[in-house]
Amino acid sequence: MPTALSTDLYEVTMAAGFVEAGHGRGTFDLYVRTLPETRSFLVAAGLEPALAHLEAVRFTAAEVAYLRSVPALAGLPAAFFDDYLARFRFTGEVWAMAEGTPVFANEPILSVTAPLAEAQIVETAVLAIVGFQTSIASKAARVAAAAAGRPAIEFGGRRAHGTEAAMWAARAAFLGGCDATSNLDAGRAFDIPVSGTMAHSWVMAHDDELEAFRRYADRFGEHAVLLLDTYDTCAAARRVVSSGLTPAAVRLDSGDLGALSRDVRGILDGGGLRGTRILVSGDLDEHRIAALVAGGAPVDGFGVGTALSTSNDAPALGVVYKLAEVERAGSWVPTAKSSPGKATWAGRKQVWRMRAEGRDRVGLRDERGPSGGHGLLHCVMRDGTRVGDAPALADRRAACLEAVAGLPAGVRRLEDPLGYQVEVSDALRALSKAAMTR
Amino acid sequence: MPTALSTDLYEVTMAAGFVEAGHGRGTFDLYVRTLPETRSFLVAAGLEPALAHLEAVRFTAAEVAYLRSVPALAGLPAAFFDDYLARFRFTGEVWAMAEGTPVFANEPILSVTAPLAEAQIVETAVLAIVGFQTSIASKAARVAAAAAGRPAIEFGGRRAHGTEAAMWAARAAFLGGCDATSNLDAGRAFDIPVSGTMAHSWVMAHDDELEAFRRYADRFGEHAVLLLDTYDTCAAARRVVSSGLTPAAVRLDSGDLGALSRDVRGILDGGGLRGTRILVSGDLDEHRIAALVAGGAPVDGFGVGTALSTSNDAPALGVVYKLAEVERAGSWVPTAKSSPGKATWAGRKQVWRMRAEGRDRVGLRDERGPSGGHGLLHCVMRDGTRVGDAPALADRRAACLEAVAGLPAGVRRLEDPLGYQVEVSDALRALSKAAMTR
Repeated sequence: MPTALSTDLYEVTMAAGFVEAGHGRGTFDLYVRTLPETRSFLVAAGLEPALAHLEAVRFTAAEVAYLRSVPALAGLPAAFFDDYLARFRFTGEVWAMAEGTPVFANEPILSVTAPLAEAQIVETAVLAIVGFQTSIASKAARVAAAAAGRPAIEFGGRRAHGTEAAMWAARAAFLGGCDATSNLDAGRAFDIPVSGTMAHSWVMAHDDELEAFRRYADRFGEHAVLLLDTYDTCAAARRVVSSGLTPAAVRLDSGDLGALSRDVRGILDGGGLRGTRILVSGDLDEHRIAALVAGGAPVDGFGVGTALSTSNDAPALGVVYKLAEVERAGSWVPTAKSSPGKATWAGRKQVWRMRAEGRDRVGLRDERGPSGGHGLLHCVMRDGTRVGDAPALADRRAACLEAVAGLPAGVRRLEDPLGYQVEVSDALRALSKAAMTR
Repeated sequence: MPTALSTDLYEVTMAAGFVEAGHGRGTFDLYVRTLPETRSFLVAAGLEPALAHLEAVRFTAAEVAYLRSVPALAGLPAAFFDDYLARFRFTGEVWAMAEGTPVFANEPILSVTAPLAEAQIVETAVLAIVGFQTSIASKAARVAAAAAGRPAIEFGGRRAHGTEAAMWAARAAFLGGCDATSNLDAGRAFDIPVSGTMAHSWVMAHDDELEAFRRYADRFGEHAVLLLDTYDTCAAARRVVSSGLTPAAVRLDSGDLGALSRDVRGILDGGGLRGTRILVSGDLDEHRIAALVAGGAPVDGFGVGTALSTSNDAPALGVVYKLAEVERAGSWVPTAKSSPGKATWAGRKQVWRMRAEGRDRVGLRDERGPSGGHGLLHCVMRDGTRVGDAPALADRRAACLEAVAGLPAGVRRLEDPLGYQVEVSDALRALSKAAMTR
């Protein structure tokens, strides 16, 4: 169950201050300040899980009792614990991009308008959920593109940041364009196709390799994928051919995968196993996959672990949650900060995508969008309750693949990509300047 | 609740095969194949959480029903679902290093001896738990060393891989030597000191900065840490001085932290606030901290976010779980594989640390250890039940700090560290060679 205690101490101290002062609402934008060097676009993810968190988040009685015991909170009035925290609910409004939407630096992925105390208490969790899943979906989009139509399967649960992260990473990888996952927890929770082969331990636990292959093939038939590299990959391939087994697929997990896939293809074809597919795995990422594809390696699918489940070349995004306006005495006042390298934009925003022109505009929600521009932010939660049903993940995955394919080719390419133009509207610029010089 | 479904599909297919064949037990070693380039030692972590997982792990009826629906499992006998999975328990034996122990490549951190099917089903989760937490504790040890006795506080929940990862990262960071966390969930679950300041949003939500400072200081007294960089850091410091406030500390979160900390120190001291400490934060890691310390920056504490919660320069370890021996017809047979670059060592192992000599030996559990050597692996679980009580986290943290300080200085240094010698005993070498050439 989501707990409101998934937060930083300062969120609670600030909340206490805001509650005490009878402060009104604020609007916070969640966005990525700059893209990692190795990303030319991101794929928004984690929005639906974040909304689920916001709908369900509470403090249990035991958690409230813990908070009373925290030294920094000791001087707070009893009412803050008994009335506010014990009855805590998120009651705000959320605008967000649809999951699977390509997104760029400084574009709000999600925007929260809520009583300041509520908006603060949920900040840490919303950032962790959206930032993490966006990083994985963004990596997955690159991996799926590199695989060039061949299946890319998420195998990274064992290297994820714990078992919960493994499950969410599998979801984000599927959303970003992968075809399946090995993770059963994710398969069940999100109705993602699950896929698997065999481990070296299966082969090693048997007296000999052929016996291990035969027993697996007998048991799992068309689902059996035989792992060839426990001892000697080509010898194992020859063993499969001479055994009379007709496995659906084999897997290569070490060595020079390009050369070995060619050798194994030759051995299989020579033995009449033209229908047996070759899967490869072993520290793959989008660059290694692209090299195998470019080299014409006869590979029918890719199992990708660590690179997908941790987005290992960019394991965190510079995701922030910044106050853009605040309610004072019943009216909304735009806010911005001017910290070096960390300045912010004021006001409630919209992001328009001009697909034909291959650029975006960030502006104020109530200004007229550019012609041909399509607004990406929609109201998805009102009074703490989701608006409409959550879309099916498979539909969002399909929409993601289409939207990524619609980005300019130069932006999408893996190596030396072009930048994508995100312009800021004059109205947003003027409002932010006014807010900073107030 | 831990679910046995936190696993890969192939663990369940292999388990079905092992159950059907009446296969016996196996011993699996969990270890890191090679250290990341940016690590000269690791700190073992996640062992206690992994044991908790092993004790509690089950399949619910709904999960078993899901597994029945997985196409690859469709041909399995009903008894596998009804008798085996529905009643699944982990009944094995576990040897492990104590949490907080420095560990090197190819040293088993944990070793499982269990019926093969059980050992496979728990593999994915145990790897994810131990691998992730070891990576964070290892990073934390470097951060704590760089801080050179000044407090290092884990602030990274918002950049962690989800809310559960945030909590475990905070625990591992504390274990590895950090002093506190901002994460309340971790503070409560693991009795870690919690610490916090204020966010820019607090300042921005007020009409002016001084009002924001005054209200926070009034409310939180000695616990108030005022954030100076929302608009202009030095102007904010002067504002604090002229206000008559006497905050316990201030925080700088952007700009040139070395120069700003000097300027702010001068302003505070000039205004009689010699007792007001200066905390810094903002994309810190061990290298930036070491540079601030080496440069003599008047900084009293460090808030470290992303670098700690994601170990961002090495977000995953090459952690593996390899079959070292298998029971066949009632006797134990050592096993090893010879995949290129991924060969394994056979047999049940012990790791001896020769502290005076600054090196380790990995050998067979039943051989005599080297003189002066101290065995690091202990039996911590028998018949699926923990042996003895879990040690207090604060005690393990203290032991970790001491053990890390006991490593050779050249190994510990942040830049260009020396390698640490891990020798393999003759007996282990001979057994592995025999297993491979069988």
